[in-house]
Amino acid sequence: MSTIDEVLSANERYAQHFTPGHLALPPARRLAIVACMDARLMVDQLLGLQPGEAHIIRNARGIVTEDALRSLILSHHLLGTQEFMIINHTDCGMLTFTDEEVRARLQQLTGTATVASVYFHAFRNVEENVRQQLQKVTSHPWIPTQIPIRGFIYDVTTGRLHEVAT
Amino acid sequence: MSTIDEVLSANERYAQHFTPGHLALPPARRLAIVACMDARLMVDQLLGLQPGEAHIIRNARGIVTEDALRSLILSHHLLGTQEFMIINHTDCGMLTFTDEEVRARLQQLTGTATVASVYFHAFRNVEENVRQQLQKVTSHPWIPTQIPIRGFIYDVTTGRLHEVAT
Repeated sequence: MSTIDEVLSANERYAQHFTPGHLALPPARRLAIVACMDARLMVDQLLGLQPGEAHIIRNARGIVTEDALRSLILSHHLLGTQEFMIINHTDCGMLTFTDEEVRARLQQLTGTATVASVYFHAFRNVEENVRQQLQKVTSHPWIPTQIPIRGFIYDVTTGRLHEVAT
Repeated sequence: MSTIDEVLSANERYAQHFTPGHLALPPARRLAIVACMDARLMVDQLLGLQPGEAHIIRNARGIVTEDALRSLILSHHLLGTQEFMIINHTDCGMLTFTDEEVRARLQQLTGTATVASVYFHAFRNVEENVRQQLQKVTSHPWIPTQIPIRGFIYDVTTGRLHEVAT
């Protein structure tokens, strides 16, 4: 049985206990979060979020890419979120290699010469990374300056968020 | 009290009940998921996922952008995931406006002329959207052809996933 078949069985059980009812499209708590895709971050649970409360945007490293900015802009301007959080974490996979190593590996595996022009955004310092992501959001012309944007590092060994001083 | 302060209080409670222990960096169930940022999708819960089991990538609409592809490539080639799921859902906010409407609204709000060149990826048909995202992944030269990639629509009124025929 594939993992996808297994999670589909789990979804059958989830649906059997699902409480029908209309939840509004705009997030009830007006919160949007950008977080890493890491498997140990149970974003809803670690923030005590219930269905319908917050937008969650995730990618490798938890960075404010053009795509994350697109999502945040839509989240605020069309669906009314008023506070943003950036969540990175300890022991991130993106700390364990460099972009050059990824490119070398992909070129070896796939033989595709154009790998050289792609950025994978490996990094070395989590706190500095969070600061940079905050800066990208606050400096964007389509994000109103009055929106609170706060950055955190999640400790995967304790389950606790630590705020990065700005 | 701001929403962020509220969720930080919730995180304190989460950390108090957190079971310390080392979870490996590579996702234990070798699964990576691309899903919409929508607040009603509790991705971990609706798939029965536990901490450390799957990578979750999310953005507005649940689409395979360059950033999502970057994340999937890293997920597979560096952290060993072997199956991919794409999850869109019913009643998506991205169905309620057009890119032109978003651009007009942002131009009015911000006066920034360059809004015209940005794509927000509004759409009209969820099933067609899922098919397009599957196509973007399967046709990418750095995603091995043997990786199973399956697409779903989550029904926000029932909690159930429906597979989109490919």
